[in-house]
Amino acid sequence: MTELNFDHDLRAQRVLFGAGRAAGNVAQALADLGVDNPMLIASEHEAELAAAVTADVNVAAHVDEVVMHVPVEVAERARKAAEGVDSLISVGGGSTTGLAKAVALTTGLPIVAVPTTYAGSEATAVWGMTENRTKTTGSDGKVLPRAVVYDPGLLATLPADMAIASGLNAMAHCVDSLWAPKADPINRAHALEGARLLRDGLAGIRTDSTPQSRELTLAGCYLAALSFSSAGSGLHHKICHVLGGTFDLPHAETHATVLPHVLAFNVAAGADAHVDRLAEVFGTASAAEGLSALYEAIDAPNSLAAIGFTEADIPEAVERILAATPVSNPVTVTEENMTELLRGAL
Amino acid sequence: MTELNFDHDLRAQRVLFGAGRAAGNVAQALADLGVDNPMLIASEHEAELAAAVTADVNVAAHVDEVVMHVPVEVAERARKAAEGVDSLISVGGGSTTGLAKAVALTTGLPIVAVPTTYAGSEATAVWGMTENRTKTTGSDGKVLPRAVVYDPGLLATLPADMAIASGLNAMAHCVDSLWAPKADPINRAHALEGARLLRDGLAGIRTDSTPQSRELTLAGCYLAALSFSSAGSGLHHKICHVLGGTFDLPHAETHATVLPHVLAFNVAAGADAHVDRLAEVFGTASAAEGLSALYEAIDAPNSLAAIGFTEADIPEAVERILAATPVSNPVTVTEENMTELLRGAL
Repeated sequence: MTELNFDHDLRAQRVLFGAGRAAGNVAQALADLGVDNPMLIASEHEAELAAAVTADVNVAAHVDEVVMHVPVEVAERARKAAEGVDSLISVGGGSTTGLAKAVALTTGLPIVAVPTTYAGSEATAVWGMTENRTKTTGSDGKVLPRAVVYDPGLLATLPADMAIASGLNAMAHCVDSLWAPKADPINRAHALEGARLLRDGLAGIRTDSTPQSRELTLAGCYLAALSFSSAGSGLHHKICHVLGGTFDLPHAETHATVLPHVLAFNVAAGADAHVDRLAEVFGTASAAEGLSALYEAIDAPNSLAAIGFTEADIPEAVERILAATPVSNPVTVTEENMTELLRGAL
Repeated sequence: MTELNFDHDLRAQRVLFGAGRAAGNVAQALADLGVDNPMLIASEHEAELAAAVTADVNVAAHVDEVVMHVPVEVAERARKAAEGVDSLISVGGGSTTGLAKAVALTTGLPIVAVPTTYAGSEATAVWGMTENRTKTTGSDGKVLPRAVVYDPGLLATLPADMAIASGLNAMAHCVDSLWAPKADPINRAHALEGARLLRDGLAGIRTDSTPQSRELTLAGCYLAALSFSSAGSGLHHKICHVLGGTFDLPHAETHATVLPHVLAFNVAAGADAHVDRLAEVFGTASAAEGLSALYEAIDAPNSLAAIGFTEADIPEAVERILAATPVSNPVTVTEENMTELLRGAL
């Protein structure tokens, strides 16, 4: 048993959770922050929903130009629009939260985030912007939303396939956290409880999408994002980063598809005791068995070929992954075993 | 299944954990806070240890008058001594951390806490002071240590009986959090992971007190305090508060002794599914069975009579407990069933 050494930064964030309570909780969060002149960031597509969520507050400005990967010029326009406001309310998925973060980065304005997907960006201090097709990312406490308002009702219309892919992306955060460079007992608590909530939530979303299944999935996604933001990127995220960045594969589906293969890969060489605890979460003899049973039950994405990756892409992918492998990974990554892993995921 | 509604305040705190690393981590924590003129608070009794822990920093002032329950006049003298410093380092148990909190309460000085017991005060924003034999307590973000430096080596000389009682007090935080008024999925994650670490740590402390058992216990105590500080006081803490306050029973031993009785009490009436998960933590058929097996294995305190409580005290205790019972408790508390509980614990 190695010695326990860690350095964990718990960050301040308020989480207000409740079905049908978004409008009241947004008003409460702003009042408790002592602000009353917010700018709303929400895409046109979410205009109606955003209006309902902000029904109890006076919105002083409104930005609806939300673009994936937050282009710098879009961020600049939003910053201009924010002149004179004292806070930001974001209503939407990862791109919307991302735009609010880009505004907070230069203005320091506090964000109240209202997520409408399971992306999890609201629980991290990571921001990203793109300029000339190059994405720059960073981490800054200023961009972490001061309050997150979760209302499972806002996710009721998300199609099941999207919810499942997005929820499995969160599951990947949990699993990857267990062997990530900064894994510790605190983020392990978040990872394992997150995995358990997602296990039940996702099964429910596939069968009949009850309000309760959305509650469980949403709470699970929050814990997943919390664990990931502190533990850092493990092997799984490095692989998906290459597949997404170099081959432009869709984010959530890539994560969902790759996860069981990385789990099997790391477990094969003698699992860490902490990874073994996923078996307990799933109630199965092994972690891999449990995850694969869940995948079957919820008809999860399971082929990289189906989302545009090809056999011919494998050598370049392997080369890039080898350059990025975290030293914390329990198994040494080689050209051979990574090629095999990607073939399996193909 | 009831709807999930909660309001959780995650607080900012840095945790630096590592055996033999206290001095380096204290210096690191101060440097990263941008301060360099600290006052040390440590009792005479811990002078040598405190000197070692602060070997890498320049201590500008030093207070060694540490008194249980933080008398107001002691706090006043410490505040005076703190004039001109820019930070506080506390090295000690709950009373020492408590004195640092009393100074931070009026001065706003940041605290770097170095615990030498398993009390857990360093993870909460709760402060307390006594004046004319009356204790006043409150909660204020200013008193939450900005950084906690855990070094299991500093607890190596703590007698096993004290370590066990103190660790079971932490276990009580975990269990009580599961049915406390503000129980939610985030503090549940902390409570259950804390209970698991304590299960292994305490067993080790009783048998041979390995460095690893202190590591596990210390990490478990941190998660326990984290869960308790957000979930609030459940029935267990209300009972112990009465026993400690009115009958002057010793804190940790009281908590340790009462816990199995409250667990059995709440579980008897049909356990909450979350409480049932303690059985999984202990690897036993029921939570009560698991806890009682642990108690036996570690020779835990198990009699209120042994620490000064008598049959004649029961009626007054019951009356006071009935007045303080949290409405969140899964079982309705009556004169009869509380009398029976205390008789069992006697």
